[in-house]
Amino acid sequence: MLYMIGLGLGDARDITVKGLEIIRKCSRVYLESYTSILSVDQKILEDFYGCSLIIADRDLVESDADLILSNVENEDIAFLVVGDPFGATTHTDLVLRAQEKGAKVKVIHNASILSAIGCCGLQLYSFGETVSIPYWTETWQPDSFYDKIASNRERGLHTLCLLDIKVKEPTLESILSKKKVYMPPKYMSVAEASNQLSSILEKKRKDGNESLAFTEHSLVVGLARIGSEDQNIIACSLQEMKEIDLGKPLHSLIIPAEKLHPLETSFLRQYAIDKTKFDESVAQ
Amino acid sequence: MLYMIGLGLGDARDITVKGLEIIRKCSRVYLESYTSILSVDQKILEDFYGCSLIIADRDLVESDADLILSNVENEDIAFLVVGDPFGATTHTDLVLRAQEKGAKVKVIHNASILSAIGCCGLQLYSFGETVSIPYWTETWQPDSFYDKIASNRERGLHTLCLLDIKVKEPTLESILSKKKVYMPPKYMSVAEASNQLSSILEKKRKDGNESLAFTEHSLVVGLARIGSEDQNIIACSLQEMKEIDLGKPLHSLIIPAEKLHPLETSFLRQYAIDKTKFDESVAQ
Repeated sequence: MLYMIGLGLGDARDITVKGLEIIRKCSRVYLESYTSILSVDQKILEDFYGCSLIIADRDLVESDADLILSNVENEDIAFLVVGDPFGATTHTDLVLRAQEKGAKVKVIHNASILSAIGCCGLQLYSFGETVSIPYWTETWQPDSFYDKIASNRERGLHTLCLLDIKVKEPTLESILSKKKVYMPPKYMSVAEASNQLSSILEKKRKDGNESLAFTEHSLVVGLARIGSEDQNIIACSLQEMKEIDLGKPLHSLIIPAEKLHPLETSFLRQYAIDKTKFDESVAQ
Repeated sequence: MLYMIGLGLGDARDITVKGLEIIRKCSRVYLESYTSILSVDQKILEDFYGCSLIIADRDLVESDADLILSNVENEDIAFLVVGDPFGATTHTDLVLRAQEKGAKVKVIHNASILSAIGCCGLQLYSFGETVSIPYWTETWQPDSFYDKIASNRERGLHTLCLLDIKVKEPTLESILSKKKVYMPPKYMSVAEASNQLSSILEKKRKDGNESLAFTEHSLVVGLARIGSEDQNIIACSLQEMKEIDLGKPLHSLIIPAEKLHPLETSFLRQYAIDKTKFDESVAQ
């Protein structure tokens, strides 16, 4: 049996009781480590779960899935995913392969950033399509997420922006060589994301686009380490967010709808770095 | 301190280890019982959590919140919510009131139906705005959720429809009397939701609307008791869903985008009641 087990968002104790019981009876336990991370060390997880963890990076999951699924039709194997197991679509493939081998699959759900962001006070039912903001390179600077944010704003909806994670990415020089050399992991901050969004706005203005969906003065919400003891939420303008340091990863950014519900305003206000500016921005 | 604790979706053991530890040290533990339900009895929860639960119905939470928050600035009080604590927006109000009394608030997140629906194989990032389908009465038959589904479909997005729950609703006759008499609880089924959607389509056609966002032949996905041992997922046409019995509550209905990703098709196909029809419907 393949168990897909969500770990939640904070630390070791965010696993469900059911999930923990299952881990402890599995013969192999994989920890998926490239779509998200917990802010605790592997050693702490292993001590709490009472088993060793096999780190599953992108290479292992996407190229060597057979290794993970070896004998899954007879053994109990756990695949741990930060958040909810289906937060990352890449894992539906693993489930299909296990089923093809005649194994049963059981999912243990847990908190996902997609719903946990409700803790900033913005109503979950008023979110539109979620977008991903990728790290730009010198030559690759996509901006299609702007259109999705714009489309959500037009309909009075908030947008959750998930920020890029680069873990175990081979260096450009080593991509073609046999021995891969990996770059240090990096996690996009709310400041980096805000800078990219601001660049897009500048470019659109230069191209003569006058009616932008939002501007540098628009209210945005930065969230860091949601679900952890040291989670951090900040509400300010996009311009200000470009300079904000929310500390360690993971970060997310929300572009709220232009109009907020009064209860959303009351709740979000506690996170405003400048209450007067916040009130002005909401009143507009 | 006020602890807002998510219980997840299935049974007693879907609480997180952290959530369980906190419950056991709280002096009062409330179980919110009107926006969602677990499919296990209160007694089973109480035995597993090791404490008595005070049922918090809508009257208590919305009219007598002071009772719940009595002495919250000095005592540890837990407020348990099925799913994630912020799935229902009504609870942000409770948090604000606790803060006004000078109490700290801590949130223990858990799985929410908003992300757990990923288990049907449809990509979470391709969902648009979530809609709620309310029970119609003879005189009140709103259909604004159709427009939201249509708008999601236009943009190639799936729609999750949350289905109405009526718990402890006073009978029409008793609304004005001093002694309220309550109707038996009811939970909308995927069949009931599909019938209401189908009525809207019929009405739109009668009104001369030719270009409908979806029809009775469109593929829909019915989900019941997600996260429970006996969860049930069915993919079929809206017409067929009108006759489907998915058993006990809670149910949800998804209207997928017109075009599916190949991985979504492969995954969803396992839930099709008729694989041939499913293949035809997806090929269209």
